[in-house]
Amino acid sequence: MARCDRLAAFSEDPDRLTRTYGTRELRLAQDEVAGWMAAAGMAVRRDAVGNLIGRWEGADPSAPALLLGSHLDSVPDAGRYDGPLGILVAIAAIENLNSEMDRPPFVVEVIAFADEEGSRFHTTFLGSRALAGTLTGADLHRVDAAGVSLREAISEFGGDPDNLLSCKRPDRARAYIEVHIEQGPVLEELDCPVAVVTEIAGQSRIAITVTGQANHAGTVPMHVRRDALAGAAEFVLAVERLAKQTPGLVATVGTIAVSPGASNVIPGLVSLSLDMRHANDETRARAVETARNSATAIAAARGLEHSWEMVLDAQAVSCEDELIEALSSAAVAEGINAARLTSGAGHDAIPMAAIAPVGMLFVRCEGGISHHPDERVTEADVQVAIDVLTRFIRDQMRSATA
Amino acid sequence: MARCDRLAAFSEDPDRLTRTYGTRELRLAQDEVAGWMAAAGMAVRRDAVGNLIGRWEGADPSAPALLLGSHLDSVPDAGRYDGPLGILVAIAAIENLNSEMDRPPFVVEVIAFADEEGSRFHTTFLGSRALAGTLTGADLHRVDAAGVSLREAISEFGGDPDNLLSCKRPDRARAYIEVHIEQGPVLEELDCPVAVVTEIAGQSRIAITVTGQANHAGTVPMHVRRDALAGAAEFVLAVERLAKQTPGLVATVGTIAVSPGASNVIPGLVSLSLDMRHANDETRARAVETARNSATAIAAARGLEHSWEMVLDAQAVSCEDELIEALSSAAVAEGINAARLTSGAGHDAIPMAAIAPVGMLFVRCEGGISHHPDERVTEADVQVAIDVLTRFIRDQMRSATA
Repeated sequence: MARCDRLAAFSEDPDRLTRTYGTRELRLAQDEVAGWMAAAGMAVRRDAVGNLIGRWEGADPSAPALLLGSHLDSVPDAGRYDGPLGILVAIAAIENLNSEMDRPPFVVEVIAFADEEGSRFHTTFLGSRALAGTLTGADLHRVDAAGVSLREAISEFGGDPDNLLSCKRPDRARAYIEVHIEQGPVLEELDCPVAVVTEIAGQSRIAITVTGQANHAGTVPMHVRRDALAGAAEFVLAVERLAKQTPGLVATVGTIAVSPGASNVIPGLVSLSLDMRHANDETRARAVETARNSATAIAAARGLEHSWEMVLDAQAVSCEDELIEALSSAAVAEGINAARLTSGAGHDAIPMAAIAPVGMLFVRCEGGISHHPDERVTEADVQVAIDVLTRFIRDQMRSATA
Repeated sequence: MARCDRLAAFSEDPDRLTRTYGTRELRLAQDEVAGWMAAAGMAVRRDAVGNLIGRWEGADPSAPALLLGSHLDSVPDAGRYDGPLGILVAIAAIENLNSEMDRPPFVVEVIAFADEEGSRFHTTFLGSRALAGTLTGADLHRVDAAGVSLREAISEFGGDPDNLLSCKRPDRARAYIEVHIEQGPVLEELDCPVAVVTEIAGQSRIAITVTGQANHAGTVPMHVRRDALAGAAEFVLAVERLAKQTPGLVATVGTIAVSPGASNVIPGLVSLSLDMRHANDETRARAVETARNSATAIAAARGLEHSWEMVLDAQAVSCEDELIEALSSAAVAEGINAARLTSGAGHDAIPMAAIAPVGMLFVRCEGGISHHPDERVTEADVQVAIDVLTRFIRDQMRSATA
């Protein structure tokens, strides 16, 4: 907990926590974490994109490695646990184990990813994508708000933009395990400190426009109006109803803009976003289709037109059954009946699934609040996460040497 | 029609018609209109706020005057008939009558108001309020987008900001009659060239906020969300339903803004505007109350909070029964069964009602389109308006001398 507080001091903004990729403050936070890694017995290096990696050398350096990690960057005006907590829990587990044994049977690495949130370059997972070998040259041309390219930012951060493939792990890893705050209210509702994640939901993001006829708010009788906002409102409620009726589905209209947008003009054009997520890709695809049919029916009934553009269609990522069982067993051995949850948020585990079986452990957070200074976890829940991760790794070592 | 085209050339913008108060282009348009007024036999003057007034002297200069008029300013990117048509129809009627007689029994004035739309200083009816004596010194401190005060603009326009009360007519007028395009689709639906206006609707404008809880669109299950936009959507539809169920009521949500406004964040705060209009002030007040109760009920059912601020509460203005009958009779005599309509839009007749009985004649416009370059009227319908107004004035003269 003290280390989370300490890292929260490294911020680009004086009055709030903001720590984006490539900044001096991220570098200073890395230096701090590097010290803790070294103190836990790890050899520390930085890769070509700027990920910080602590390595606890294994008895068999060629055996598949166990990877632990999370991200050290943040969104603007962030809380102090989203990301850093997973890194620090992993370091604490290594500290525990290093006091029990000389060296593990396989390499264990703790990775502090340099970018997961994507706040600076509007592309998420820069760090874990580099490790998975899916960060390409095309991304290097992206620029931040100040016009600095990703290529320049990587160089300034001490990385090597021309050698990103060197970040890629040559072999498939034994597993990638990520501890993260839940960022939702379910564990609090269940009165449970931790959850084993079963899958990371797939996500559809759709850009929708509804077109009617702008006109004078005083002179056009109700029965001849083609009000784009009234149609959009009907759609917002249809989507909400659909999600409530479909177990596990979440659907959100997060943005809406009206044109011309004057209090005395009937809305002629509305643009809105739709975000739909579900653990099962088929269920999600059916829900998207149902939502689209609703939009078509609403538009037809009201004499409106609409457009529908799929902006993002990300498949769900399953956590490995064996890892789910192993994490659950470790929790039971610690006296905890861990919940099982789908993650509705994206995590570094998504790109990492390309190079390793993945598992995730969620830690309860107060009120489900995240991406906000009010983000809170309890010391007791963090202790549970450290204990469960420590036991999980120890179990992995035993089965590797059995 | 040619004169409307000619006036449309006087625009601040090269590619679209924009002619706001106090500009060189409004002055040039006035000079053009002044020439037509003089050619119709009127003495032309400008008052202290910059209204252009053509006076056809009466046999009895002390008898209550008949006032005709509309406005010469426009909204940005305007059509060419909203305002100017009413002035030009009045001048055409005077031309007709001047060829029939030496002088009228009472003074007839045609007023080209210098500001009705309020586009520059965001205060409507500057011209007619000056004539009615309700433009006060407090308004002089208003500034336009460039920081120019109304006081400075009046001076630059050749007016006298310290002498606005000189604009006020000393005596109550016989009547104020305004010809204007309908700005709505009802006459087109009724297949009728003109309508006699029975009243100008009262208007309530309300600023509403809905507050819920912003949160992650992926991690918060539907049943625990407090989505401000979903609540707002329910309100938009409740208002639409209320207006459809209440004869003569129009209700419009014209603006809506969401915070934080990201596709992956549940809306925490929504601001929206509500515009409600009805010819009967009691009906409007009841409808506002019903809408407010809906907002309260929706918020309570969803665990949301809301605020409700009445921004504008303008009473309805009735046209004078005798003028309604006289305009209708004049139309019948011209072979037209004029419709009777409530005006949902505001007009110079509202402030003028303080110093004269008012009457209005609406002219059909294509598709109800207004405040848009596509504003259209037909030559035949404009001819009807000129004929009806000419006959109406002739009838007024006859009854005055009878």
